[in-house]
Amino acid sequence: MESLNTLGELRSARLQQQLEFILEIDRLKSVLRRSYVLDDNRHENSAEHSWHLAVAAMVLAEHAKEEVDVHRVIRLLLVHDLVEIDAGEAFIYDDAANAEKAVREQAAADRIFGLLPAEQAKAFMDLWREFEDRQSPEAKFAFSLDRLMPVLQNVFTEGRSWREHGIRQEQALSKNRAIADGSPVLWQAVESLIKQSLID
Amino acid sequence: MESLNTLGELRSARLQQQLEFILEIDRLKSVLRRSYVLDDNRHENSAEHSWHLAVAAMVLAEHAKEEVDVHRVIRLLLVHDLVEIDAGEAFIYDDAANAEKAVREQAAADRIFGLLPAEQAKAFMDLWREFEDRQSPEAKFAFSLDRLMPVLQNVFTEGRSWREHGIRQEQALSKNRAIADGSPVLWQAVESLIKQSLID
Repeated sequence: MESLNTLGELRSARLQQQLEFILEIDRLKSVLRRSYVLDDNRHENSAEHSWHLAVAAMVLAEHAKEEVDVHRVIRLLLVHDLVEIDAGEAFIYDDAANAEKAVREQAAADRIFGLLPAEQAKAFMDLWREFEDRQSPEAKFAFSLDRLMPVLQNVFTEGRSWREHGIRQEQALSKNRAIADGSPVLWQAVESLIKQSLID
Repeated sequence: MESLNTLGELRSARLQQQLEFILEIDRLKSVLRRSYVLDDNRHENSAEHSWHLAVAAMVLAEHAKEEVDVHRVIRLLLVHDLVEIDAGEAFIYDDAANAEKAVREQAAADRIFGLLPAEQAKAFMDLWREFEDRQSPEAKFAFSLDRLMPVLQNVFTEGRSWREHGIRQEQALSKNRAIADGSPVLWQAVESLIKQSLID
């Protein structure tokens, strides 16, 4: 990418920092996930995935286990994958990749959110940490949506990504059971979809 | 895409409608725009574009001309392009395509939002109409962001999409001047970027 000298004439240093951040995060569109876009023969990227989750939150919020602030759920989801720009995407079934993920992701968060003016950097960092810590009702529900979507995508691509990676029914059930912490209703749906679609 | 019979066993008809909508909107990931992803040699799709705008709203809200409810700006942006699933994307410089756009988009909104339970369909329809009507402070600012982003993308791909479509500086200035209705600060930045980058 070209350097941002072109922005050098903007009067406000603050606006320049903000626009540099916005340009930098364009890269999330090039981080590929294991899942497939439903009617297109390509892997999904993390930017369009984040959009999909945010809209899903607007639609499904009533199914959260505890009452949630939908706006914060949306913001958690818009921000939750940004660290992948530096740290890459870790397939949930790849335990080795996930073990060292936390260190790489913290460094990524420091760099990427650090492009913003200080108080905005902190706000983004707080959202990302809240999602990762999975303690608040909003974070638990956001996590449930993040797990729900690949299950739906697998079910409607005949389990393509599961088959490619040799995922068995018991693994899929075990990795997705935490959906129930954010939404028992969605977990019930997911459990039933996995059992119908992933026959060992 | 496979039919949704697999969801037939979900106990709640309401949840089934919601999941069908969520699966349907996956198609926005296959609607291509004229703009390019910055460090990838491909056109941007409308889903990742919508994500990018929503995050930009979180960062740039302070530059709105009037005070805005950021949450509503975000929701307007997440929803604003969904009609393109049926109606396609109209390049802002293509006046012929834009003339008949309203009719196609209303039909698209009726079908796509109509997949949702009635009161959610209405809520999505209202957001989409609010964005299109560009009367509320939130809609004006959301529109400014929707115009800002392609300018940034052009500036940092050496005007690639402008050059491919023979867009001249005066056209770019005239088509983007409405950014000032939502944000004089962002219009000032955009005007300066266009003048530096698009030399006839």
